[in-house]
Amino acid sequence: MFSLTVRRHFMIAHSLPREAFGPAQGLHGATFVAEVTFRRAELNDDAIVVDIGAANGILEEVLADLNYKNLDEHPAFHGKLSTTEALAKHIADAVADQVTDTPDGQALAGIDVVLRENPDAWAGYTLDLHRS
Amino acid sequence: MFSLTVRRHFMIAHSLPREAFGPAQGLHGATFVAEVTFRRAELNDDAIVVDIGAANGILEEVLADLNYKNLDEHPAFHGKLSTTEALAKHIADAVADQVTDTPDGQALAGIDVVLRENPDAWAGYTLDLHRS
Amino acid sequence: MFSLTVRRHFMIAHSLPREAFGPAQGLHGATFVAEVTFRRAELNDDAIVVDIGAANGILEEVLADLNYKNLDEHPAFHGKLSTTEALAKHIADAVADQVTDTPDGQALAGIDVVLRENPDAWAGYTLDLHRS
Amino acid sequence: MFSLTVRRHFMIAHSLPREAFGPAQGLHGATFVAEVTFRRAELNDDAIVVDIGAANGILEEVLADLNYKNLDEHPAFHGKLSTTEALAKHIADAVADQVTDTPDGQALAGIDVVLRENPDAWAGYTLDLHRS
Amino acid sequence: MFSLTVRRHFMIAHSLPREAFGPAQGLHGATFVAEVTFRRAELNDDAIVVDIGAANGILEEVLADLNYKNLDEHPAFHGKLSTTEALAKHIADAVADQVTDTPDGQALAGIDVVLRENPDAWAGYTLDLHRS
Amino acid sequence: MFSLTVRRHFMIAHSLPREAFGPAQGLHGATFVAEVTFRRAELNDDAIVVDIGAANGILEEVLADLNYKNLDEHPAFHGKLSTTEALAKHIADAVADQVTDTPDGQALAGIDVVLRENPDAWAGYTLDLHRS
Repeated sequence: MFSLTVRRHFMIAHSLPREAFGPAQGLHGATFVAEVTFRRAELNDDAIVVDIGAANGILEEVLADLNYKNLDEHPAFHGKLSTTEALAKHIADAVADQVTDTPDGQALAGIDVVLRENPDAWAGYTLDLHRS
Repeated sequence: MFSLTVRRHFMIAHSLPREAFGPAQGLHGATFVAEVTFRRAELNDDAIVVDIGAANGILEEVLADLNYKNLDEHPAFHGKLSTTEALAKHIADAVADQVTDTPDGQALAGIDVVLRENPDAWAGYTLDLHRS
Repeated sequence: MFSLTVRRHFMIAHSLPREAFGPAQGLHGATFVAEVTFRRAELNDDAIVVDIGAANGILEEVLADLNYKNLDEHPAFHGKLSTTEALAKHIADAVADQVTDTPDGQALAGIDVVLRENPDAWAGYTLDLHRS
Repeated sequence: MFSLTVRRHFMIAHSLPREAFGPAQGLHGATFVAEVTFRRAELNDDAIVVDIGAANGILEEVLADLNYKNLDEHPAFHGKLSTTEALAKHIADAVADQVTDTPDGQALAGIDVVLRENPDAWAGYTLDLHRS
Repeated sequence: MFSLTVRRHFMIAHSLPREAFGPAQGLHGATFVAEVTFRRAELNDDAIVVDIGAANGILEEVLADLNYKNLDEHPAFHGKLSTTEALAKHIADAVADQVTDTPDGQALAGIDVVLRENPDAWAGYTLDLHRS
Repeated sequence: MFSLTVRRHFMIAHSLPREAFGPAQGLHGATFVAEVTFRRAELNDDAIVVDIGAANGILEEVLADLNYKNLDEHPAFHGKLSTTEALAKHIADAVADQVTDTPDGQALAGIDVVLRENPDAWAGYTLDLHRS
């Protein structure tokens, strides 16, 4: 299995209004560093997983919808908690939506997202694509 | 699959009394940086894998039993070699023991440990939990 | 010259209401990783710059006043912009205030703060202490 | 599953003569940091995956064949594109060839290679060894 | 003293045709990660050292002149060795030329460049600006 | 001012028998990552600060005297505390001794050592060389 990973950061404000989140219940913010991995069993004719410029473009577009936003007001998190885990899934799903209709996208076996919160903690989501 | 990783370091002294270990046969020491990942298919009601405070607390407790210790005298390594690989498994098993009897612990699919020895070498252990 | 550096992260929300800050004019958030360096010409009798536990304690206390806060409502930034540069100076000054009245604090030549914003940008402030 | 990873860098020159590669179509160069992971279900009698000195020796030998070379003139890439993905597979295969005829090599479940291109991009190849 | 650092990578091919450089005498390549620091005694009216977007723009422009190039054919290194140290000075001087005629540029005390060659080696150049 | 930095790690065992060191009073161990910087006002005729192979060789030799040793029994620390700060000075002095009698060594303005203890703490020593 081959993989290609691209990395990009974004900043958000949000609150996590559940008792379990302690001081994070109030409005605060975070910088997340997203590492998005594209997996594929065989390379394309250019001997790559996906075009790295296209991969960066997709990640940039997906993160532009989150960057500098207050996630408490973002439609994707209406009535939902925007935890790091939930954000990782949101990004993986959004990236998958964008690559679906390209030949390289059809060939992908999966998309993995790691969101680095701080040097001592990160969360991830692994999306397996079963296309046929 | 979702994941949450927490990181924490510890320092030990030990010896590796086998010819294969060359200069590491004598008593020496190491700083290890442990990255412990909790894997889970679905998030809990708070949209997280496990409470990060609880995860850090468990890791702190597991590592407190090793930190500043001479592993040659540690009961867990009596008659055993405390290689990085063996330490990784020890930590994964110890973390698994602690999370077993909580609802979030029961939901875990696995626990992965990476132990960074130095910038150019690390070892890991992947523990799959088949609970029913 | 000797130095000791300790590192700790914190999360804030804030806005930067000047045209120059583009999308950062709105309320958003950030994770900052603070690296605080204590400089000293000669070591103390324990052959250290300062006690690392005390250094971490001071940094924890200084950052507790910022962590999970909205800096737009923080008294230290009333009528001021809480840019990364200004935050670095605030932290250096606050750390200096805390160490002043200890013997090790009196011996310090300076305190440096680096605030890592994201993998591609950081700001710093160097505070020289001219004590006599 | 246990793992051991060793890391080593190398520098090459090459060109990627396809329209898809834009400015990388011309002769340019790169520093790659290779992380090679050896996976194994059970440890050997010394409680390790493989001897780390042997692992480093194999990686050094495999990379010596690439380091400071112009890959456009390297026999392994004759008529092929030396993309990061292709290089990752080349390294995994070459490492696998070298470990095959040792007892530890026979016990390996797989070899994974990650090639870091720059702080924001990396590629990988996962080689599963089905030995019997 | 305040500082702001921005980071950006670039890739080059070059040769170092002196006996001292061993295998690097032949044509090979490298990825360099440039960290460029702007130093200033007092912040501007926006409480920053320089606009980070402008800093990134200048660095992008300076590095575009080097990225994907064969430095053996670059006019700036005609008859000169393009060592990491020499490249660091070239970048510092080029950045200084671009910031000179802006109010923030006039206020700078210096520009520092660190060029990371690989995880185990880097070179730097410190440019003090004595403007009056 | 130009600089060149090389990095290399080593492992030691030691004790810090003063009350101030808490659990570190007992015999324990550490991995240190040493970053050694050579500073120089003007480059040599090869456009470098010092030969990087020679710099690595000196660092390797200096660290070989410490690596896998119990510093409690090392002559350099007889009756002295082997704190990170003291170790940083020991390494800077030992490197300076080795470079003194070469032309490049005579041209050095200083040698800086940073010793990374763990991801959250490091110590340093700056040695200015006033040669005439």
